[in-house]
Amino acid sequence: MKITRSDLEELDNRDPLNQYRSEFNIPEDILYFDGNSLGALPSATVHRVNEVILNEWGSNLINSWNSSGWYTLSETIGNKIAKLIGADDGEVVCVDGTGLNINKVHAVALKMRKNRKVILMEETGFPTDAYITQGLIDQLEQGHIIRFIKKDEILDAITDEVALVSLTQVHYKTGHLFDMKTITQKAHAAGALVVWDLSHSAGVLPIELNKCNVDFAVGCTYKFLNGGPGSPGYLYVSKRHQGKQIQPLTGWWSHKKPFAFEQNYRPKNDIGQFLSGTQPIIALAAAEVGIDMVLRADIALIRGKSIELGGIFIRLIQEHLIDYDLDIVTPRNGADRGSQISLSSPNGFAIIQALKEVGVIGDFRSPDNMRFGFAPLYTRYTDLWDAVKKLQVIMENDTWRAERFNNPIDVT
Amino acid sequence: MKITRSDLEELDNRDPLNQYRSEFNIPEDILYFDGNSLGALPSATVHRVNEVILNEWGSNLINSWNSSGWYTLSETIGNKIAKLIGADDGEVVCVDGTGLNINKVHAVALKMRKNRKVILMEETGFPTDAYITQGLIDQLEQGHIIRFIKKDEILDAITDEVALVSLTQVHYKTGHLFDMKTITQKAHAAGALVVWDLSHSAGVLPIELNKCNVDFAVGCTYKFLNGGPGSPGYLYVSKRHQGKQIQPLTGWWSHKKPFAFEQNYRPKNDIGQFLSGTQPIIALAAAEVGIDMVLRADIALIRGKSIELGGIFIRLIQEHLIDYDLDIVTPRNGADRGSQISLSSPNGFAIIQALKEVGVIGDFRSPDNMRFGFAPLYTRYTDLWDAVKKLQVIMENDTWRAERFNNPIDVT
Repeated sequence: MKITRSDLEELDNRDPLNQYRSEFNIPEDILYFDGNSLGALPSATVHRVNEVILNEWGSNLINSWNSSGWYTLSETIGNKIAKLIGADDGEVVCVDGTGLNINKVHAVALKMRKNRKVILMEETGFPTDAYITQGLIDQLEQGHIIRFIKKDEILDAITDEVALVSLTQVHYKTGHLFDMKTITQKAHAAGALVVWDLSHSAGVLPIELNKCNVDFAVGCTYKFLNGGPGSPGYLYVSKRHQGKQIQPLTGWWSHKKPFAFEQNYRPKNDIGQFLSGTQPIIALAAAEVGIDMVLRADIALIRGKSIELGGIFIRLIQEHLIDYDLDIVTPRNGADRGSQISLSSPNGFAIIQALKEVGVIGDFRSPDNMRFGFAPLYTRYTDLWDAVKKLQVIMENDTWRAERFNNPIDVT
Repeated sequence: MKITRSDLEELDNRDPLNQYRSEFNIPEDILYFDGNSLGALPSATVHRVNEVILNEWGSNLINSWNSSGWYTLSETIGNKIAKLIGADDGEVVCVDGTGLNINKVHAVALKMRKNRKVILMEETGFPTDAYITQGLIDQLEQGHIIRFIKKDEILDAITDEVALVSLTQVHYKTGHLFDMKTITQKAHAAGALVVWDLSHSAGVLPIELNKCNVDFAVGCTYKFLNGGPGSPGYLYVSKRHQGKQIQPLTGWWSHKKPFAFEQNYRPKNDIGQFLSGTQPIIALAAAEVGIDMVLRADIALIRGKSIELGGIFIRLIQEHLIDYDLDIVTPRNGADRGSQISLSSPNGFAIIQALKEVGVIGDFRSPDNMRFGFAPLYTRYTDLWDAVKKLQVIMENDTWRAERFNNPIDVT
């Protein structure tokens, strides 16, 4: 039996998360499958940002650093994120960007394993994680190397040369979910530390950093946490590693007493040492709204719906697009993937542009990867049907071949 | 002849900048003298931020990276800041925070002077500039040192050991204006490079980086540029130094082709290499509004009014508060100071708190510094009178001695 649109309407009606969609401002004529890149706008964000601007900044001005909690906002939001990723109070700060946070935790991890020079990363992981590490390695001039490993060879590659295993929990291109617990265990058994990038997993599946005994983690808030374009990142440092090695971007917010204005640096000895300078308060406040909404929802329901959305999308592709050369590169088994399905096609770039023109928003990752992300708080089951039918029309008519879909753009 | 309030009313009426005040949302019951710490809210910012959130994020979603210019916003705003600081297009980006930007330019400058190990800084300069440099030095492990110098001994201290002279153009505590041209010349003559922190000068006095042949500069946008709490910083790299040494925070936005998702880092060879990761777009957009307003105003008029405000404030202090132990630590000569007057008093902390209670907002910098900043776009001449009279009442009645003004607060 093929899936019908009414089957999906039925699922939408029964969906225990379906009240959340009304809390977002999503245009009616858009089918949005890019929440894995930029989450949608929570309506409450509009109100909150206006409150911050008009009342906290406009009326209370400089006093708001104390009276509106600006000064501790990175920690306040960090403690909320902690609940989403299985960390404790005082283990997470919301600060800077993901890449800068990787720089901080990698720098600290390498100091903790002075005699080891190898950093393991997955060979096709999100490039900025590697780029920022290459910058750090060049700066340290201590002979560190990144060893790029195939996904299936990671466990075997964890030897006693390895200082650090640094991986993204959900692969940005393929949607593969890595086994945090097993890899972390293996790393620790070999005397290595682990850093997990949660950018594509936080908010969309249960994460248990402390239960997995993870050392460090980073992530961003603008994907499934709906924090807004370029909203601040976060980082996690296990309590057992705090107060030992100093992260090197030692701005005044990481100082023991910032407002003592001392001449010499003295580190905070807790998670606050992983702050650096003054943070963009409006952006932080916007991010907090998205995080609050995910906290209200049941993460088990989110994960269940996410897996179901992915499974149905795969079936619809198989049932309606079997004639076209669209390979499904994401694991068929729901437990092995995050909240996206990726299709590969040599014409992927143009197909994604053609879809945009008919209101279906996915994205493209070079060289051939079309990504469709599912955000259980606002993606409807029927959206899958409607998108696949539009994709079918594009494929049947070769619409994507038009020149206007084949012009390069800056951000894909 | 003592100054009278009607003299000041007359000055307000004749002030060619007086139309700008109506473009800010400033509470009627506040006399705000802390624009040197957090600038006031431009009304246009409210509109612009709502447009970014509702239209660009809410409606256009991920497409806005291209269609709303998000992807190039750091450069777009950087080019606007360039006009305020005497730089050219392609020499400034608005990105990250001041401290992180110091890290980047110091790292590059030290690479350019491999054989020199001394960084000169003024001994009482803004601490984060030194803290972040100490973090960099510790990370490099190449034997660099910061040599802290008294203001008047800087020129003599520039020897051929010096790699880098790193100074704030206007001193955050005292308001002293440093001689950018002479110090830069002396540094270059000795083979050293210069970094100027413009945080307390940009937007309030004419700055000529290129005419002074400056190498690098950094600054923040939340003071006299009215960009909002914690709004992004900026950095300037002279064209002649671009494309040579790599700044080490090598996130994907500094990569030659970010959306090629290559495995290995390849630097941009222009100012874009000084970007790092994804930027907080809402915060950038808010900052742009404040910068646009300063660009519309005549910087010569701003500087003229700024000096006059400072001079009148000093006279009012002398005419009304001579009996109290309030030392004026800012230069009396207008050409030697930025846009603040600082008074020192062992009771400074409590006096500033007592002033806040009657609606006069200055701030306190440990151990004894009371700062009063003047923002010519919104500070009125009569504000000076009204503030000094309120201060006089507090001093006459010893109001500041009350316990409620002597409790510690986080952010001073």
